[in-house]
Amino acid sequence: MKTIYLDNAASTWPKPPGVKEAMVACIDEYAANPGRGAHKLAMEASRTLYSTRAKLAELFNVVNPNDIIFAPNATVALNQGIKGMLRSGDHAITTTLEHNSVRRPLEFLKDKNGVELSYISPKADMSFEIEDFEKEIRKNTALIVVTHGSNLTGSLVPISEIGALCKKHHIPFMVDASQTAGVFPIDVQEMNIQLLAFPGHKGLYGPQGTGGLYIDPQFDFEPLFHGGTGSQSELIEQPLTRPDRYESGTANTVGIAGLGAGVQFVLETGLDEIRRKEMELTTALLLELKKIPGITVFGQTSSVERSAVVSFAIKGLDAAAAAFALDRQFRIAVRSGHHCTPLGHETIGTINEGAIRASFGYFNDMSDVEALVTAVRKLATEVDRD
Amino acid sequence: MKTIYLDNAASTWPKPPGVKEAMVACIDEYAANPGRGAHKLAMEASRTLYSTRAKLAELFNVVNPNDIIFAPNATVALNQGIKGMLRSGDHAITTTLEHNSVRRPLEFLKDKNGVELSYISPKADMSFEIEDFEKEIRKNTALIVVTHGSNLTGSLVPISEIGALCKKHHIPFMVDASQTAGVFPIDVQEMNIQLLAFPGHKGLYGPQGTGGLYIDPQFDFEPLFHGGTGSQSELIEQPLTRPDRYESGTANTVGIAGLGAGVQFVLETGLDEIRRKEMELTTALLLELKKIPGITVFGQTSSVERSAVVSFAIKGLDAAAAAFALDRQFRIAVRSGHHCTPLGHETIGTINEGAIRASFGYFNDMSDVEALVTAVRKLATEVDRD
Repeated sequence: MKTIYLDNAASTWPKPPGVKEAMVACIDEYAANPGRGAHKLAMEASRTLYSTRAKLAELFNVVNPNDIIFAPNATVALNQGIKGMLRSGDHAITTTLEHNSVRRPLEFLKDKNGVELSYISPKADMSFEIEDFEKEIRKNTALIVVTHGSNLTGSLVPISEIGALCKKHHIPFMVDASQTAGVFPIDVQEMNIQLLAFPGHKGLYGPQGTGGLYIDPQFDFEPLFHGGTGSQSELIEQPLTRPDRYESGTANTVGIAGLGAGVQFVLETGLDEIRRKEMELTTALLLELKKIPGITVFGQTSSVERSAVVSFAIKGLDAAAAAFALDRQFRIAVRSGHHCTPLGHETIGTINEGAIRASFGYFNDMSDVEALVTAVRKLATEVDRD
Repeated sequence: MKTIYLDNAASTWPKPPGVKEAMVACIDEYAANPGRGAHKLAMEASRTLYSTRAKLAELFNVVNPNDIIFAPNATVALNQGIKGMLRSGDHAITTTLEHNSVRRPLEFLKDKNGVELSYISPKADMSFEIEDFEKEIRKNTALIVVTHGSNLTGSLVPISEIGALCKKHHIPFMVDASQTAGVFPIDVQEMNIQLLAFPGHKGLYGPQGTGGLYIDPQFDFEPLFHGGTGSQSELIEQPLTRPDRYESGTANTVGIAGLGAGVQFVLETGLDEIRRKEMELTTALLLELKKIPGITVFGQTSSVERSAVVSFAIKGLDAAAAAFALDRQFRIAVRSGHHCTPLGHETIGTINEGAIRASFGYFNDMSDVEALVTAVRKLATEVDRD
């Protein structure tokens, strides 16, 4: 029995053709240290890193690929950006939809350095008022950092408008694109984004262990790690200051080779086509769930301007028990629990019971939606009978 | 023409049978988020992480595998340990053989927090006097951190003796096992090591993008990253539970699957057999290099108690030019330059010209030594003629 994988908001799976092959080629042929030797294998490794950087730069409209720093995941990228930008006495504005990878670094800085925080909540329909952000701006506001898309409700945060607001007030703007990179257009120049953190293993279809951070060249801050950069060696190709500054230690060459193939897939397929397919499935699921008695869909229930993440509950059935039953009885992989966003759950009123989350990727199809709907209907009916 | 790969001190290559296969199985079958879902794929991912942790615990004689934290490389592990342990006003003791991944974090803390540093130099034969460490111990000495093996000269640092000294003076002891993990026995209990940083992609034969840090359970310090942990999502602060506390963000499941296979290979082959083979090649190279006029071997020139790293120079030939010629004319991959240890080069007197470094792994054989010796002899003769 094949697993029906609906946990793409955590990691997309399966990966497109080419990802595994790029990784295997790297292991077999050139898994040497990029930037740390002049021999052919090391140079091939360096080329792979640069090629992936260039594809990411194309996707996000970054001028210089070397302003994109590789990180093992979006969490490390977010920590680097947030802890790099904020100093004692600074103020930062964020939202109540953030993942713990934004909230916890901010709260850590609040405790440790007295960084002040303002959390902006969406309205009941999950939309934001730009005025709510503007009202919170203070003289010491040094960063506005928001997620582009909620990993709980699939609702989007209006980053273009917030970017414009930041431009007007000369405040650095950071975006967590964990749920949207590779799905929604992100243009760091057009949207006035100075820091963009993204995972490699979600919408960019690379393997786990990859991700990155775009840092606008006008900003320079202390790296989280200090160490070997290869750039002090007398190399034939002298590396530029970036990305070395933020990439101490041996890179995940194999993973980045896979990420390059994933981003290539995204560029070739096109964001519009990826979104079209994901939205078709999301719309169908939302429609069908509404027809089942005892189902509550949380957050935004329309399919307009949202990502392919749907959170819901089955009346009378604990979310964890429901997810367990979906896996064991129907071989459907969804997620339950707090999805690392307790604040998001508070926002939608599910902090105690959690929610069942189904999330689509490009490789799902309508039969997956049908299987989930059938299973949920069965579970809801069984509960009703008890 | 096959590449003769003699850059194993940077990354071992090729990898043993099983490593690629474990990674491919992970990508194909279960590359989901470990610890972040109850579905079968996520549980399989969690099992892979635990299984690799357990193998590492066996190798290093760690009581609880959850005290081993995965990191993308040894540099990040070293940064986590050093920056976690040292506070303003503390004093640390280290050696002049350290890689930049130890020296730079220490120097950063000196600049930023006023941490005091003492560097201990080896004698001319690259051995250390334990008294030199003991003399530097102060009331505020909070850490002794040393590399186990120089990445430049292959000489070893007596970690057992330093561990005993640390025990006597109740000073935490940290070891950088970048050049020795998987080659020399390391027993954290027997050797009194409280922090052990290691790469996954060198002697443990895993892929790049892997590594780790053992943290003695008696120590707790602030993680370098804060974020999603999969457990205790509802907390604002990082949970205390290990390994979650230090592993925010999605793990490199694919890489760790490969690392597990690499460590399995090491455990099955045995450190004695790995060392026997590497030392056979090292001894042969040292003997042959001594016969060639115009060759200087740096650091320890005996094959007793050393790792399979040999640094040398060809009289009249720049190290970078020599490495380039070895690659282009003979397809032999070695390294030149400063190997991220300018201090090490100062110690052996090669700070200006650098050195050519050849380093063996288990998959080299005597024909590789012969090829290198033949090539070096040819280059030395050509220079002599000019």
